[in-house]
Amino acid sequence: MRNIKLVLRYDGKAYSGWQAQRDRRTVQGTVTDTLEKITGLPVRLFGSSRTDAGVHALGQVANFHTETHLTCEILKQAINAELPNDIQVVVVTEVPNSFHAIADAMRKRYRYVLDDGSPGDLFRRDYTWHIREQLDADGMHRASQSLRGKHDFRSFETHYPNRASSVRTILEIEVRRANDQAGRFVHIEVEADGFLYNMVRAIVGTLVDVGLGRHNESWPSEVLAAGDRTAAGMTAPAQGLFLLWIDYGEEQGGAASLRGRD
Amino acid sequence: MRNIKLVLRYDGKAYSGWQAQRDRRTVQGTVTDTLEKITGLPVRLFGSSRTDAGVHALGQVANFHTETHLTCEILKQAINAELPNDIQVVVVTEVPNSFHAIADAMRKRYRYVLDDGSPGDLFRRDYTWHIREQLDADGMHRASQSLRGKHDFRSFETHYPNRASSVRTILEIEVRRANDQAGRFVHIEVEADGFLYNMVRAIVGTLVDVGLGRHNESWPSEVLAAGDRTAAGMTAPAQGLFLLWIDYGEEQGGAASLRGRD
Repeated sequence: MRNIKLVLRYDGKAYSGWQAQRDRRTVQGTVTDTLEKITGLPVRLFGSSRTDAGVHALGQVANFHTETHLTCEILKQAINAELPNDIQVVVVTEVPNSFHAIADAMRKRYRYVLDDGSPGDLFRRDYTWHIREQLDADGMHRASQSLRGKHDFRSFETHYPNRASSVRTILEIEVRRANDQAGRFVHIEVEADGFLYNMVRAIVGTLVDVGLGRHNESWPSEVLAAGDRTAAGMTAPAQGLFLLWIDYGEEQGGAASLRGRD
Repeated sequence: MRNIKLVLRYDGKAYSGWQAQRDRRTVQGTVTDTLEKITGLPVRLFGSSRTDAGVHALGQVANFHTETHLTCEILKQAINAELPNDIQVVVVTEVPNSFHAIADAMRKRYRYVLDDGSPGDLFRRDYTWHIREQLDADGMHRASQSLRGKHDFRSFETHYPNRASSVRTILEIEVRRANDQAGRFVHIEVEADGFLYNMVRAIVGTLVDVGLGRHNESWPSEVLAAGDRTAAGMTAPAQGLFLLWIDYGEEQGGAASLRGRD
């Protein structure tokens, strides 16, 4: 059996999230159907991140075991020819049999895109959260730094507890105004060793409250200390969230080559 | 009676073009309905460019005569609150009674966006024409320069003759690779004193043939000289076309302030 790793890019708008569900259009279901059609064999596809309905990906990673003899290049061409035009395979590589997209992920990075232009950029309306007042991006950045490091993030987890532990390590978090002549955007990027359910979106909702002056810059650290989801801001809507990349360490390759591009 | 000028921005994807048609969703029809609802009065809306189905606008201009007492600022807020989220009013101004959005237009500028990335940027798929091979943007630019100036453009007009004259003056035409980290894009911008039906899209189809090496750089001038639509390249698809702005000369204001931004 060969083990094939895929890096996937998708517009989540038309999907009920990654995870396959009966009678719902999902990314996992759509990609699995495509792989089964191309290989003529049953496929079990493991996706690293169970992105929610409406969430997008620039570098989702998945793997599947198969007996197909098709080369990676042929697989990539065939998959892209077969997939609907809102999902793409960016990289297809053969990996050691032990590789598992979920278990082996070391770091992930998400981007959330806010549009505080007036009016908002209508050509980005499906890929941003439009905020009607101007955000203080610098203040949001300063406020976000208290979330760096290893913490119990249960205040930022929807339906706590739903994982064995709510302790995660945020390796980097930054808020910056994006340099884009087409409009006014604020990017929030969070890189961590793993994420809890809706964690990025709860962090974004909290930082937006700071950016609008509803709370001061020390508030996120107080929310973190409270250990209670009701202490935090709202869960930001799905359509502004992008899974940027997943890193498996040097030896697996692939992910590193995508970094910096997006 | 007051004369109100609107600068409109819209995503043409969901519309059967600008011009009102029975039983079709059009931009003119949608904006007219909104204006009638807000003012409580019948409205006849004149739009400068009859953009086709699927064509977008960053700066369409329209005007209407009305007896409403609402200020321009209130009108703008009310219109934007009422319009669907794929149409926006960017500017509302009161203009002299003699102003007419169609008759007074002096210059217009369109942009066409090509995506020759491999694979194409799926988040821009509704706003670009995806070309599967790499384009020679510099060669396209050189080839385009023969179209500058005053010419009979009937070779680039669908359904010639459908205007009194097919002579127009292209004031500027440029092809350049856009500096966008998200993907590989080529912008074709054409500024003229007026445009024939599908003229920009026929020019784009012709320049793409040059950019792919199917014809050499002198070909567009031969097409122009032929005076025959069948001599030119295909009509490029609607979704890559954006009406950027319409200029009415200094005294009308409005358009100038939008330039440079997009």
